[in-house]
Parts: sequence; C-alpha cells; structure tokens
Amino acid sequence: MKIYADNAATTQLDKDAFEAMKPFLLEEYANPSQPYSFSRKSKRALKEARETIAECIHANPEEIYFTSGGTEGNNWTVKGTLQYGDDRTVITSQIEHHSLLNPCAALEKFQYPVVYLPVSQQGIVMPETLESAINQETRLVSVMTANNEIGTVQPIKELAEIAHAHGAVFHTDAVQAVGHIPIDVQKLGIDMLSASGHKFNAPKGIGFLYSRNKLLQPFHDGGSQESGMRAGTENVASIVAMAIALKKNYHNMDMNHQKLISMENEFVKILNQSGIDYIRNGAENHIAGNISISIRHASGEMLLHRLDLKGICISTGSACDSVNTQISHVIRAVGVPKEYAEGTIRISFGVMNQSEDAVSVAQTIVNILKK
Amino acid sequence: MKIYADNAATTQLDKDAFEAMKPFLLEEYANPSQPYSFSRKSKRALKEARETIAECIHANPEEIYFTSGGTEGNNWTVKGTLQYGDDRTVITSQIEHHSLLNPCAALEKFQYPVVYLPVSQQGIVMPETLESAINQETRLVSVMTANNEIGTVQPIKELAEIAHAHGAVFHTDAVQAVGHIPIDVQKLGIDMLSASGHKFNAPKGIGFLYSRNKLLQPFHDGGSQESGMRAGTENVASIVAMAIALKKNYHNMDMNHQKLISMENEFVKILNQSGIDYIRNGAENHIAGNISISIRHASGEMLLHRLDLKGICISTGSACDSVNTQISHVIRAVGVPKEYAEGTIRISFGVMNQSEDAVSVAQTIVNILKK
Repeated sequence: MKIYADNAATTQLDKDAFEAMKPFLLEEYANPSQPYSFSRKSKRALKEARETIAECIHANPEEIYFTSGGTEGNNWTVKGTLQYGDDRTVITSQIEHHSLLNPCAALEKFQYPVVYLPVSQQGIVMPETLESAINQETRLVSVMTANNEIGTVQPIKELAEIAHAHGAVFHTDAVQAVGHIPIDVQKLGIDMLSASGHKFNAPKGIGFLYSRNKLLQPFHDGGSQESGMRAGTENVASIVAMAIALKKNYHNMDMNHQKLISMENEFVKILNQSGIDYIRNGAENHIAGNISISIRHASGEMLLHRLDLKGICISTGSACDSVNTQISHVIRAVGVPKEYAEGTIRISFGVMNQSEDAVSVAQTIVNILKK
Repeated sequence: MKIYADNAATTQLDKDAFEAMKPFLLEEYANPSQPYSFSRKSKRALKEARETIAECIHANPEEIYFTSGGTEGNNWTVKGTLQYGDDRTVITSQIEHHSLLNPCAALEKFQYPVVYLPVSQQGIVMPETLESAINQETRLVSVMTANNEIGTVQPIKELAEIAHAHGAVFHTDAVQAVGHIPIDVQKLGIDMLSASGHKFNAPKGIGFLYSRNKLLQPFHDGGSQESGMRAGTENVASIVAMAIALKKNYHNMDMNHQKLISMENEFVKILNQSGIDYIRNGAENHIAGNISISIRHASGEMLLHRLDLKGICISTGSACDSVNTQISHVIRAVGVPKEYAEGTIRISFGVMNQSEDAVSVAQTIVNILKK
C-alpha cells in the first residue's frame, strides 16, 4: 500500500499533461526561435500555453514569463525589482517560503532594508500590520497567497490595495495556490505572481512568473526569448504540460475542492473521536486538503517515519526544512506552544488521492499514537 | 522529406534518455528532498546522474550544479562571480554567445569594466591577446570552448593558464562542446563550465554548471538543493535524461566524430565541384558537423527559406540572431568580407543524421544557387 499525502511538496504528473508533452519531447523538437517551418508547431504550442495560463489567472499572455519553477520566480522578483543603488525597502512576512526569505536575506547583506511582518495565530498577515509598516520608501510588498506549511490563504486584495496606496508594487508567491483556488490577478490587484508547475500536477522544473507592465529587470540576459526578460531555449514540452495541467485543475476546481474538504472532515472526525490532544494550524480560509496539526508531546519526525513504514507519505514541515529537526519558522511565527510544536505534521491531500485515503491516514496516525 | 541540419540550435532527444526519464515523470515523482522511502529512488537517481556527468568531464560530483540550461549557467557565472562593490574586471571574447555577452553588458551598466578580446580570422582567441589584456585586476576570464556559429574550438588550456597566472578564475561556455569533444576540466584547468542538455540530445530546460571550490555566489536562494547554491525542487526526470544522453554521446564520441567529419568532407566536395564562390568559416580544430559558409553575393535568409521549402532545416546564424537580418557579431568579428557575409549559412549535422544527408543538403544548396 502507498498513500501519497504530501501534495504540498510535489504532485504526481497528470496523465493528459504527460501525453501532451510527449510529442514535444520526441518529434516536435525544433527550437521555437528558428524561422523554418519545422519550428511552427513548437512556436504555436508556446503561444497557446501562454494564452491558456494567462486565461486561468485573468492575465494577458504577454504578462506570463516561463521560468524553471517557483524558486526562480521568487528570486527574480526580489532581485529584479530593486535597482542596484535603490535604497527603498521591501516588506514581506515572517511565514514566506525560503525561496522568498533567503533572497531577502541576500538583499539585507547589501544594506537593503527588509521588513518581515508578523502574522496572527491563524497565520494571517493582517492588513493593519502592513498599513503601519508601509511608507513612501517601500518599493515592494511580497506576501504569499497561501502558506505551504499550514495552508492559510492571505487577504491578498486588501494587502495589494495598501501597497498600491503607498506607491509600492505587490508580489505574491502563489506556488501553493495556483491550480487550487481561483486567482484573478486583475480583481486582486496583483502586480507579480510566482507559480510552480509541479505543485499542480505539471512536471518539475517548470513554472511561470506573471508580471504586469515590465516591472522587473531581466533575470536571464541573452537571447530574445520571453521578450528578452528570461533568455534561454524554451522548455516547450514542460510548458505545454504545465498549461494542460493548470487548465484541467481550473476546470475541475469546484469538484476537487469539495472532495478535498470532505476528506479533511473525515480526517478531523477520526482524530477528534480518538481523544488525541492536538491543535489544528491555519485558518478557515485555507488550501483544501492541507491539514497541519500539532500533537501534544508527540514527535513529528517519529510520526513521519512510522507512517512511512506503513506506506504513507506526509511531511513534518516544508521540504527544505525536513533535514533539520528544529521547529519551522512558520510554526514558530503562529505561536504554537512548545509542547505541541515538535509534534507538528502536515498531511496534504491532492486531486490524485482517493477519498478513502483520509480515513486510512487518520486511523494509522491514531493507531501509532495510541500504542 | 525532412533533413534536420540545425543541431547547433537544438538536438533531438535520445530515445534511451526519454525512456530513462519516463518513470521519473510518471511513477517516481517524489520530491527528492523528503525523508520518506518513496523519495529514495529519485534521490538516488539525482546522485547517480551527478556522478555520471562529473565523470564525463573529469570533475567531482559535488562540483556539478544542475541548472535550467546554458543561459542560466552563463548568467550565473557572470553575475555570481563578482561581489557587488568589487571593481575587478572581466575579460571575455567578441564571439561569445549572447547569454554571456548580455550579462557582461548588464555588468557594464553598473560600471564594472569588461574587456572583449578580438579573434583571428579563424575565430580563435589568441593566447597572446589575452596575455596583453590581463592584469592583477582581472577577476574572471570567460572564453567559450567552441563557437555556436562557426564551430571553432579555442585553446582553452593555454587561456586558462594565463588566467591563473594572473590570479583570475577561468570559465568556459562549453554548450557547443560538451557531448561533442572530450573535455577534461582538470587537465584543461577549467574553474567553471556551462553546459546545456538540449545541445547533446537531452531535453530542453536542463543543463549544468561545473564550478570548482565554491567560486560562485548562489544563483537561486531558498531551499538547500544543490548545496544551497541553486535552490528549487530538482527536475529529476530531465536530469536523469541528461546524464543518459551525455554518457551515450561520450561513449560513441569517436564513432560520431568520424561519421560527422566524413559528412563534412562529402558536403565540401560537392560544394567545391560546383564552382560556387564561398568561404568556409572557422578553424581546423572545430566541432565536427558544424559547417559555416559565406557565399559570395548570396542571401543566407533566402537560402534558409528555399531549403525549408525542400524540407531542410539550417540556420543563418545563432537562434537568437535569426529574427534580425543584420550580420551576426561572430561573422563580423572574424572579418568575413561584406560581399560574402550576407550569404552566411550554418549547416550543423548531428548524431541523428544519416550520412546521405550531407549529400542531399549540399546538392540542394548547389541547385538553388545554380538556378
């Protein structure tokens, strides 16, 4: 038996996405930048993928830049928004992914000031907190749409409005959100958004950055690909697969959401019936299927390994943290009490899971803890 | 009929490489950073791919960093070698790829001095030219192993020695060379090397940077992947495919070389017999299969389109230049006379070509020109 319940770390490639990428791996291998007829199909596929992706988030196709993933998008945003010599500040939150926090730390080394906003117990960046930190010197506000560890969805529209009212641009790391919840960059007022294919059943190594009105410096200088903003021969096959996977997730979004919420409910019911002393992390408004719990006097690491022996894959935190035993920056930021914090695990169900998986995982956890 | 003779722009994916990547796209999709058993195969595959690639270029596995391709490797090198505030210079050549030249131009905007060395008529960066330009202020010397437009192979060992004698580090853009000619980074004294998978029958969107002794700043800050130097979930499937394709190319290198040289000879024989007035660009020591010719009073663009109508894919210059009609920087740097320069085409045969392709392409060119 294998139950994969770590979809916030990565997801299984969608079969249709795989079928769509195959011809571009095998037969239609032309470099889309070349002017001969053999390049037409790959060029057209790129164009169509860009249109599909733009449509999913209500952007214009020319605002979509293909990247190698979410980490690239976040690095590009932080490093490409500030002009060198610019002394305006960046405001972000304490619970961002390391691919956003670490580029900020790199900026700080060169004396650029960065403000890290605290969050509520639910992991929410409160608009009033941003309001009191922001001023005319703020160049960039970056707050993630949904947190990878606890799933909390942020009040993006309100945060973007505050940023704009002070002349700052607003970026969101939407790696955990794209393909999972509706995102309308226009209605939400998002200027830049990072996404990663492998979090929504596309291949690893592909992603996109949405950026309005050329707010950024180029990330890869070189050829004229991606309007000269991100040079390099395009990963046509993976781009095509990403568009297919994203479209499918948007098409099935309501159905997927309902299924995942009912799986969550099943899971929580079993846990509650067991009498186990735990805290559910995150907020009411969260990514469906993402269940972060902190169990009193338990060890998240032990649970992960015991579940692994039963063929169940879960996480103790974000992938990047899993080599360390220390309590993750997110769990610290939301103030989980010490006797619960070390017993934190994240179960993240996805569209490939069966409804029964929720029951199996919950019962296995209860059995391990009750032994 | 289709004859693909543009292998310097991109190559067809090797079938074994495709078969090797398939399981990592479909079944073995675990995030290699996770600690559960399901991640073991992807983790091991990454390790083995790194070892295979290192072995091919005589490096150590921990000196190989996976990237999204050659452009990323070149950008990383130029932007990651100089510390901000460092006023030491970069020396490169006039015939580098745009993915090296344009990051240098970006450095110049911030007042970092960059020296562009001229080349001989064969496109060779003469060691004495470097010797007279270099001084103790030189931080980085970057000269490509083989040129993409004319195929010339540079005297890398001599150039690296001069760089080291003056305390500089030596980088080479080996995108056109890796998988095509033997490269021993230790014997050649290469400190950093960029490579791109899709130039040696691996997928697009994957490449690697070899870097000795942590000479670089990280390119993607974030998770701890690639020793913290290039964060982001690894593109396991493409990395595995790249290792398979590279190993195969190295294994068959002598055979491939002989086949491609005899194709070149066939091609040139037909052209010479036709009495067409042309110049063969490049040097004796060049990438086999790369034939750059400048035909008197011809139009490279017209030739490309006429050949396209016959199902033959060639190039007028590098992919990034093909949208412009102006004479490429490489053809200008080697001093092709004006009446020949506009008639420049590049035929690049690869391992997937049949021997007969050389005859067909040459005869078709002759027929078009003789009409």
